[in-house]
Amino acid sequence: MSNTVTHQSSSLSAAEKQKLAKQTQRHQQIKKQVRQKSALATQDCHRVVLLTGNGKGKTSSGFGMVFRALGHGQTCAVVQFLKGDAECGERNLLEQLGVKVITMNTGCSFKDGYCAEHERVRTQQVWQQTLPLLNDARIDVLLLDEVTYTLARKHLDVDDMVAAIQARPENQSVILTGRGAHRKLKQIADTVSQVNNVKHGLEQGLKARKGIEY
Amino acid sequence: MSNTVTHQSSSLSAAEKQKLAKQTQRHQQIKKQVRQKSALATQDCHRVVLLTGNGKGKTSSGFGMVFRALGHGQTCAVVQFLKGDAECGERNLLEQLGVKVITMNTGCSFKDGYCAEHERVRTQQVWQQTLPLLNDARIDVLLLDEVTYTLARKHLDVDDMVAAIQARPENQSVILTGRGAHRKLKQIADTVSQVNNVKHGLEQGLKARKGIEY
Repeated sequence: MSNTVTHQSSSLSAAEKQKLAKQTQRHQQIKKQVRQKSALATQDCHRVVLLTGNGKGKTSSGFGMVFRALGHGQTCAVVQFLKGDAECGERNLLEQLGVKVITMNTGCSFKDGYCAEHERVRTQQVWQQTLPLLNDARIDVLLLDEVTYTLARKHLDVDDMVAAIQARPENQSVILTGRGAHRKLKQIADTVSQVNNVKHGLEQGLKARKGIEY
Repeated sequence: MSNTVTHQSSSLSAAEKQKLAKQTQRHQQIKKQVRQKSALATQDCHRVVLLTGNGKGKTSSGFGMVFRALGHGQTCAVVQFLKGDAECGERNLLEQLGVKVITMNTGCSFKDGYCAEHERVRTQQVWQQTLPLLNDARIDVLLLDEVTYTLARKHLDVDDMVAAIQARPENQSVILTGRGAHRKLKQIADTVSQVNNVKHGLEQGLKARKGIEY
């Protein structure tokens, strides 16, 4: 490996080498600052991560963290709020891996059968199933997917949710996803990302694609 | 299930029931519009998805889509640009699942050993390994993680990259991640999300956490 580097580097011009040397120096300076900042980061506590905004990537990111944690041998659970009974690639894989997945399963809200009253009842049932998970120290990472809508639609009480999240076990991280997150969720989150839509294939006549959108 | 719904609904006041009925009506109207728009989406072609911006969630989202595709039985591959040799949960799991992962592995850039010349050589080697993947019709989803930095640091040529991505097989979707994406990557992407940092645990003295950050 180091031979290859030497060989290929020798084909660079003096100007190119100088440019790269400057890049190294600049990079090392930036990294020194980052390192100094990182040294101040000493608390290794559990986390609340909130992914909100109208762009693609919130749910994928939440599931990505679950799979990352599984790769470290951690225990995870997933609650899918407001999701229908459509095929879902990540749920298929999680079930193969023995991960508990609770799905609200009120049917696809894009169909005419949508009923807010039924949704509210079902949301509250699923929340009752979520509470024991938020109290279970065996779970390292708990994903509450699309949970923001339950507050926006006033099916659940934000203070109850905040209290349950804050009372969770010391090792448990919680990931919350969904558009238009309540300001109280933003307050209790340690990390908040706003995923903005710059452009989306669906707006350009592209159908939702298996493996990408669902 | 429907019994429970009836039972719980009957405990609602008339005012609450009316509010929920209005919510149903409003929701159905919105969904009708979405459905009309979706009906115009007829092309089920492969996708270029770009996740950029400075917030947490780009890489997690990219890996989330890979796991989603695996859950559908699709074939995936991952190239990690600019990643060190540190432990990585998602790589552990992907390797267990038999997914090809190529890692640049130039060591952690936060350590003093960083050298732009070495990085450039290694980037070009990894790009040579990436080209056959971009040409392999067996791969449904290809993640090029942190690939934007290879252009920002001028280790690779943007036009070469764009040409290789555009010439890929008809079934192959490509996911690109990293801060400060080149405008030409934004142009060729079907879906672009800008992941903005609202707040980050690391800024508040919290150490990078296993299962969440790595």
